[in-house]
Amino acid sequence: MKPGFSSKYPFRLPSWAIRLACRQQKPIQVARDRMRFVIQLALTNVTSKTGGPFGAAVFETTTGRLVSIGINLVAATNCSLAHAEMVALANAQQLVGHFDLGAAGLPKLELVTSCEPCAMCYGAIPWSGVRKVLCGARARDASAIGFDEGPKPSGWVMALKKRGIAVSRDLCRDEAVAVFQRYKEAGGDIYNAGKGS
Amino acid sequence: MKPGFSSKYPFRLPSWAIRLACRQQKPIQVARDRMRFVIQLALTNVTSKTGGPFGAAVFETTTGRLVSIGINLVAATNCSLAHAEMVALANAQQLVGHFDLGAAGLPKLELVTSCEPCAMCYGAIPWSGVRKVLCGARARDASAIGFDEGPKPSGWVMALKKRGIAVSRDLCRDEAVAVFQRYKEAGGDIYNAGKGS
Repeated sequence: MKPGFSSKYPFRLPSWAIRLACRQQKPIQVARDRMRFVIQLALTNVTSKTGGPFGAAVFETTTGRLVSIGINLVAATNCSLAHAEMVALANAQQLVGHFDLGAAGLPKLELVTSCEPCAMCYGAIPWSGVRKVLCGARARDASAIGFDEGPKPSGWVMALKKRGIAVSRDLCRDEAVAVFQRYKEAGGDIYNAGKGS
Repeated sequence: MKPGFSSKYPFRLPSWAIRLACRQQKPIQVARDRMRFVIQLALTNVTSKTGGPFGAAVFETTTGRLVSIGINLVAATNCSLAHAEMVALANAQQLVGHFDLGAAGLPKLELVTSCEPCAMCYGAIPWSGVRKVLCGARARDASAIGFDEGPKPSGWVMALKKRGIAVSRDLCRDEAVAVFQRYKEAGGDIYNAGKGS
């Protein structure tokens, strides 16, 4: 599979993100280093003022090869669906040419995300076909700077495991949280909905 | 707001869907008739073989004016995110030019869906800004023909209500379920993920 970082559909990435992904030719062997890569995406999204403090990527689990990346693009694209995880999953599916990242013939794929998924991204994971999810910050770390992470059931890790999807949490959590803090200090938009209520 | 049925981003609609939406110039006053409109979308998606047996739309609650439509496009677009509700929400946001359909200055907007949301679409609703959700079939009706509707918490209606989003269920449920049956009888694809496991 060739990296699909210039994928135009459904979520367009800013040029800095495409450049950063294209530079990552070398497989990333260690899980913590995969997490540091997505935290770097989150940080650059903040410093480039292209979106919220979240980054994600799809990797081949065994080889560590980068398949696709995602960053939060909600405000930039006027689309509340455009969370980092959703962008990474959708772009990976475009690349492999299948809506099921767990389809026969594909290597085992995993989602690496700088923050535990919100209720929407959590619900998207079983449909996506990834076999594993690695999370950095906790949802409550995102809530602490004002994001409404949504009504996710407390037993979500077990519910994914029951569907054959392994979950690993708290990888480089402090580094992921540091990006949230930087976003908050920079006065970044907390793009919860219903602001007109 | 002018209807945005030709919106190319992020989800492209087939031409029959754009035509069907463009013909619906007249506001739809009665909730059951709004539901019948989205069930018609679901049915035409099946008979046109463009996707799964699900339809959705965003309406202005007070006037009944149609804002955007959505149909299931998972297989057609190679994107597991492309559920009818997600397509309708994303296209409505493109149209109004804001990721928050509850933003100041917008009329009150509602999501009408031929089936109760799955775990992903449920999680997407609070981020979207809609103030109301009308559902046709139950999630268990979709499960009955083989779809994995995902790990949605049992108290989901109350969880949305707590966020100021009203939920109405079982509108024209039998008519919505009839479309599922038709899809099943036609041998329609049940596009759950992990088929390669």
